[in-house]
Order: sequence, then C-alpha cells, then structure tokens
Amino acid sequence: MAERRRDALQFPESEREFLEPHLPPKHRADDNTSRVFTTLTFATSLDSSLALSPGTQTLLSGPQSKAMTHYLRSRHQAILVGVGTAIADNPSLNCRIEGVGGYGGDGLEGQPRPIVLDPNLRWDFSSDSKVLALAADGRGRAPYVICAKHPSDLKRVLLEQRGGKFITLNISDTGPSKGKLDWTDILQALRDHGVQSVMVEGGGAVINNLLQPHYATLIDSVIVTIAPTWLGQGGVVVSPPRRCSADGTPVPAARLRDVRWHPFGEDVVLCGKLQ
Amino acid sequence: MAERRRDALQFPESEREFLEPHLPPKHRADDNTSRVFTTLTFATSLDSSLALSPGTQTLLSGPQSKAMTHYLRSRHQAILVGVGTAIADNPSLNCRIEGVGGYGGDGLEGQPRPIVLDPNLRWDFSSDSKVLALAADGRGRAPYVICAKHPSDLKRVLLEQRGGKFITLNISDTGPSKGKLDWTDILQALRDHGVQSVMVEGGGAVINNLLQPHYATLIDSVIVTIAPTWLGQGGVVVSPPRRCSADGTPVPAARLRDVRWHPFGEDVVLCGKLQ
Repeated sequence: MAERRRDALQFPESEREFLEPHLPPKHRADDNTSRVFTTLTFATSLDSSLALSPGTQTLLSGPQSKAMTHYLRSRHQAILVGVGTAIADNPSLNCRIEGVGGYGGDGLEGQPRPIVLDPNLRWDFSSDSKVLALAADGRGRAPYVICAKHPSDLKRVLLEQRGGKFITLNISDTGPSKGKLDWTDILQALRDHGVQSVMVEGGGAVINNLLQPHYATLIDSVIVTIAPTWLGQGGVVVSPPRRCSADGTPVPAARLRDVRWHPFGEDVVLCGKLQ
Repeated sequence: MAERRRDALQFPESEREFLEPHLPPKHRADDNTSRVFTTLTFATSLDSSLALSPGTQTLLSGPQSKAMTHYLRSRHQAILVGVGTAIADNPSLNCRIEGVGGYGGDGLEGQPRPIVLDPNLRWDFSSDSKVLALAADGRGRAPYVICAKHPSDLKRVLLEQRGGKFITLNISDTGPSKGKLDWTDILQALRDHGVQSVMVEGGGAVINNLLQPHYATLIDSVIVTIAPTWLGQGGVVVSPPRRCSADGTPVPAARLRDVRWHPFGEDVVLCGKLQ
C-alpha cells in the first residue's frame, strides 16, 4: 500500500470550504434526478491560454492548484476531456488525492470515470496509454469513449476488458449542434450509464463550445484557475465564439454570476455560474 | 464648488491599503532620481480582452474598479495612453476622486498630466475634446503629446494655451524599438519635463508592447483588474508577442512576481511586478 501512496496529493480541509457551494451534493446514492451535475473547470494564463501551442502541455498553475484539481476529481463521478487532449497529453485522468482508491483507499472509491469525447474515433489508445495502465493497476477507472461511429472489435475488447466501453451516439441533425454530437445527448447518455456528476476539463475546443449561451443551462458550476503569467500570442485560447445582438453589434459572449474569487498561492481560483 | 463635485468618486481608505506597496512613494517633492516610477494598469475580461472590438469602449469592470482607477490616477503625476485610445474613446484622462483639484480640492492638486503617445500626429483634437475641455474648466490638466513629427502651429498653440505641449522625440534606429519611439526615450522625456510617476493605461498595442521582456526593467508595478466575463473572439486582446527559447520552443512571454490578488466586488485586482 505504501508504494502506491507515494505520489498521493494533499488538499487541506481549510481550502475545501470555499469550493463546497460549487460542487455536486455529497450524498447522491438515492438520487433519481435525470440531470447530470456538470462542472466546467480549467486553468489559464492571464491571456486566457491553456497551453503555449496546440498539442503541448504547459505547466501553468502551482502545486496547490494541482492538488485542487485532484480534489475536484474526487468529488465528481466522471471527468470529461476532448479527443485532442487525450491524444496530445496522454493524460492519467485519475484522482491522486490521499485516501481515494489506489491512493490509500479501498477499491476504486473516489476514482472518477474518465470520459473521452471522440466523435470520429481518432484516439488510438493501447494498453500502454496511461489511463488504461492505471486502470489495470487499480489506480483509476477505464474510460468511456463517446463517439459517433462504431469502433473496431480490437479497441472495443481492449476497453471492455478494463471495464470501459464505447458509447455511440447519433450526430445531431438540427439546432446549434447540427453536424456534431449534441451536449444534451452526451450528458443524457452519461446519466443513462449511471453518471450523476461530471467535471469537464478541456481542451480548448470543448470549453469554447460549452461556453456558448445555448449550453449555459447545462452547466451547473464553473471553476477557473488563473496563473499570473502571459503565455503570449499563438497559445490555445479559451474565448467563446463571438456573439452579436439582433442588430449585429458584438455583445459579451458569457458572464458568470454568484462569483467568488479565492487567492490560492500565486494563482487565483474563480467560482461561479453561467448567466 | 458643490456643482463641480457631483460626479466625484469615493474610494474607501480600507481598500487603499492593498494597493499601497504597488504605488509610487507618496512624498517625492525632493526626489532627484532620474527614474520615472511606471505603473502598467488595465482591465480585461477573462479572455484578456480590453474591448469587444477595436475602436469601441466596453464597460468591463464594476463601479468599485472605476473608483480604484481614479484613485490610482490621483497617485501618479501622469497617465499615458496610446493614440488609438485617444481617438476611439475621447477620454477624459482626469481624476475624479473626491478631494482632488476640481472635485473639492484646490487648483489642480492630485490631477495627473495626460500623456498621449502619438508618433505620427494622428490625434485630431480640438478645444471640444474632453481632455481639453476639462483642462479649460479647471478639472484636469492639458495633455503632453509625445510624437516623432513636428506639429502644426494651430495645434501647438491650442495645446500650449491650455498648459499642454508637444514633445518631439527621435525614432529609434537600433534595438527592439527600431523604427519606433523607444520606451526608454519616452520615459526619459517625461522625467525631463518634471514627471516622476506615470500610469500607463492602454490601449492594447501599448500594453502588449510594454509586456515584452526587454522593457520589463522599465515597469515598476503591474495592476490588472479582471471581470468575470468572456467578451468572445474578435476582441482587443492583451497578449504579448510570442517568445521562444534559443531552440525555437515557445516559452511564456511574461510572468509576475510578488503577486497579490484582491477580490473586489465582482472583479479581482491583481498586483505584481514583471519578472
């Protein structure tokens, strides 16, 4: 057990309090609601960049913010990333907070389900991919891959052997998601597969998509960490598509209400809800 | 006197404390230093936009942040903007904090000198321009215009009648400012004209220029207000030019040290120094 816990992270009780109003309720075993509690969370520079360039991982926030991200993961049943992030980062998508399953706790208790949004099955994972290796090692769950195509038997078996699965949805043929997977369908599919809360972590395309006004009612909570650095032009930027009023005048794309700012080491954490 | 004070702003003592370490020293009458204390300050959205589109003014921050900006103005001998801002916003560039000259105080005590950076004399001001009208009315100082050309006699006389002036500098022929006015020259010229502290307020071109590493030693303090809104793609963005290491790999363009975050109404104020 000790060996497994050496990379466990601590997130002090004193810091958990400010996050609590922005998290899914703790006891949901008997929750029959059809809504998935959806948190949008990410870390940017002052110039709203997630990374220095597409396909690279940039260390933005300090160690405290990293521990916070893992605490947030422990408080959601699933964490969702776009396929670009899965390919670029080979992410672990598990939770390393001290006391969760694989890090001092029993079984997979507190380990979120990784969800990879991959409409065209671009993610060429193998048993060596971090997320699958961690699942084999009992330190995380195998992913659900949400797609719009039918996967090969090879990939399907590999995923299912570890406890993951593909969830194939239909491309939307109307509305703002026309030609793409629709977020209402995605979240409903998660609910149908037993997921009551999901934390959407990135990347840029997924976040910019979800910050559009027609998806605001799907998002229960937004948690943004900002580091006191400017990555400079050419980064992977969080900035939703331009929005205009009826007469064509640009208007702000999105705004948070019930805002709380929490200075956190060198960074600041912003919590709020989409208006 | 009462009439003149109806638009005066209050900035409570209790809020001034956190700013103090980031401001020019208060008593500098006998200060013979050749350095101009230079503060870079601006307000952005979460996606680092100053405005929805070039040439428009966007109300970003709340009333408290506005009062803070005017308090900051009262603590600097000059405030500097680029010509784009002067043209687009027809700015007042005065200070309306209760108690400064024109707002309950004597003469022009506490009123900063507006500085407009206008190398090519694009700013077509008149006696109706807000900044000159306020100067005529005893509620602000007339601007110094820093340029690289010789102005017309008409404009020169208009400016000088109000107490302003043109300061003509040479275009730099070497270094990172080649073909442009150099910030070292600009700040030295201000010092030569009696200015001991300047607050650089914008717009985007000026800020992005000053956030480059070769100017970091000129900036004593950075104060950024961030509002919990995303303006969306197409805004006027603060993001310095891309910076790369010797092998061509992108690296962060700029970072702050000695960071303080101060939640302030719905906004947050970030104070720090450029590394």
